[in-house]
Amino acid sequence: MRVLIALGGNAMTAPDGSARPEDQRAAVTAAMDAVAEVVASGAEVVLTHGNGPQVGNLLVKNEIAASVVPPVPLDWCGAQTQGTIGLLILDALEAALSARGGTPRVAALVSRTLVAADDPHFTAPSKPIGRYLPADEAAAMIEHGQSWQDRGAPGWRRVVASPDPIECLEVEAASVLLAAGYAVVCAGGGGVPVVRTAAGPLASVEAVIDKDLTAAVLAGQLGVDVLVIATDVDAVVLNWGTQDAQAIGAVSAGELRSLAAQGHFAAGSMGPKVEAACRFAEAGGRAVITSLDRIADAVADTTGAAGTIVTP
Amino acid sequence: MRVLIALGGNAMTAPDGSARPEDQRAAVTAAMDAVAEVVASGAEVVLTHGNGPQVGNLLVKNEIAASVVPPVPLDWCGAQTQGTIGLLILDALEAALSARGGTPRVAALVSRTLVAADDPHFTAPSKPIGRYLPADEAAAMIEHGQSWQDRGAPGWRRVVASPDPIECLEVEAASVLLAAGYAVVCAGGGGVPVVRTAAGPLASVEAVIDKDLTAAVLAGQLGVDVLVIATDVDAVVLNWGTQDAQAIGAVSAGELRSLAAQGHFAAGSMGPKVEAACRFAEAGGRAVITSLDRIADAVADTTGAAGTIVTP
Repeated sequence: MRVLIALGGNAMTAPDGSARPEDQRAAVTAAMDAVAEVVASGAEVVLTHGNGPQVGNLLVKNEIAASVVPPVPLDWCGAQTQGTIGLLILDALEAALSARGGTPRVAALVSRTLVAADDPHFTAPSKPIGRYLPADEAAAMIEHGQSWQDRGAPGWRRVVASPDPIECLEVEAASVLLAAGYAVVCAGGGGVPVVRTAAGPLASVEAVIDKDLTAAVLAGQLGVDVLVIATDVDAVVLNWGTQDAQAIGAVSAGELRSLAAQGHFAAGSMGPKVEAACRFAEAGGRAVITSLDRIADAVADTTGAAGTIVTP
Repeated sequence: MRVLIALGGNAMTAPDGSARPEDQRAAVTAAMDAVAEVVASGAEVVLTHGNGPQVGNLLVKNEIAASVVPPVPLDWCGAQTQGTIGLLILDALEAALSARGGTPRVAALVSRTLVAADDPHFTAPSKPIGRYLPADEAAAMIEHGQSWQDRGAPGWRRVVASPDPIECLEVEAASVLLAAGYAVVCAGGGGVPVVRTAAGPLASVEAVIDKDLTAAVLAGQLGVDVLVIATDVDAVVLNWGTQDAQAIGAVSAGELRSLAAQGHFAAGSMGPKVEAACRFAEAGGRAVITSLDRIADAVADTTGAAGTIVTP
């Protein structure tokens, strides 16, 4: 059995969203205990992960230090988080596997994701990222070519393009490592977005890709049996936050899309997870949205008892 | 034939040492043209690279933004540079290989290098890193547990431990990828230093490892035929900068060590390259110290015409 586990922010930050180094290390360590259970069961495991708070921190450092050290582009910030989160996962997953008595084999790949140079998101950037700034400081950033939006009371915030992922470029290297018994970290933060230039070669671009949508693409490319989208709730919930709240067990992609169209799922949080699960299910796979501590159960379950299972 | 190419700073920065993003991209693009020639010749190629200026920049960002964003430890900065430089190499080497008509296969691994927890360098840190600060600002850093030294006129500078590399932990993953036809980027910046903790698991530590010494270790682990140390001069030179300057062609490790003992090679630049070449040659291999544009010639040459060849 081949499994792709997409780790949400709670696998890399404190419950309050804080991303101090010690918070990240503690969260990854806890998450890898759950992942190790799946690896130890004999499944081939691919891991991908979010990086929102981490990239946000890097952007703030870029801005504050800009007069002393040249800022690096947003795509480089994504690559930087693949390095740090990859490092944390290597150490923590190997430790969790060693504790279970096996020989740990874990590898983390610097990973790119192809997007279309003419993706409409590039002309209408809408993904908020980084800190809030007062209007005058935002205006200075806009002069440097960035897009910032007035968000009311908290201030202005940078918005970037979040183009649709087309293809994970490290999929063949990941396949080679999987076949050799490695758990493989790939497409972290959705992968560094790259486009094909007019001259042919690839070049990374300043954008971010939704990590769950990339996970659905990667799951399809690798032909995984289950795509597990791990987050901080046990399942997809209808009427979230009301008396009529109701967890969804097993559901078809068509039904789930209807519910999404009714506005049940927030654009910035459950929305992309539902979209990713539907895409993978529509391509013939099984997708599960569940909490970190139910990953192992969710891989084995087909009834919807361990999360929201989305089927074709 | 299996080759390890260790890329020096001039493969990732402008000739004046500047490490703006455009400088890094231009330097990597030029370097990958030379590397592609070796890959296209049919050799199995492992790449490693330095990261001094890049890590220095990240440390400065850490310091300047510390009151707003939590700084990350030095080992994380190293991992971050593996992400960015790995990304640049993936794009540039694939482009150079595609231009030669082949199917490019390149992978970059987040990489750790084992060092001893009781390495004497940890108690006497001596590797200067990052920017100069006035005494009062350095004193504040020292209060936070860092080591800083008075360097005279330019100010105080942080010094960190540069422990001896023992083992590259990603060597098996690199071997799997090499066997599948990949050029593999591994142990960037000497690898992220990790120690075995008392409890057993690995943990990364705040230090930097000389990338050429790590390259010698990795070359031994991978059983490469040639270790190429690529830098900004054509060969090792005796009496550097004098009328008696003389390039060394073929030399034995023993002879080269004698010359090193006579003080011919600077501690911070040619010294570690000579030490790395000697270590690999003493283990039975062939090491070459040469310039970037002579890499391909140096791989094939055994006479010392294309660089300084160090043999057992």
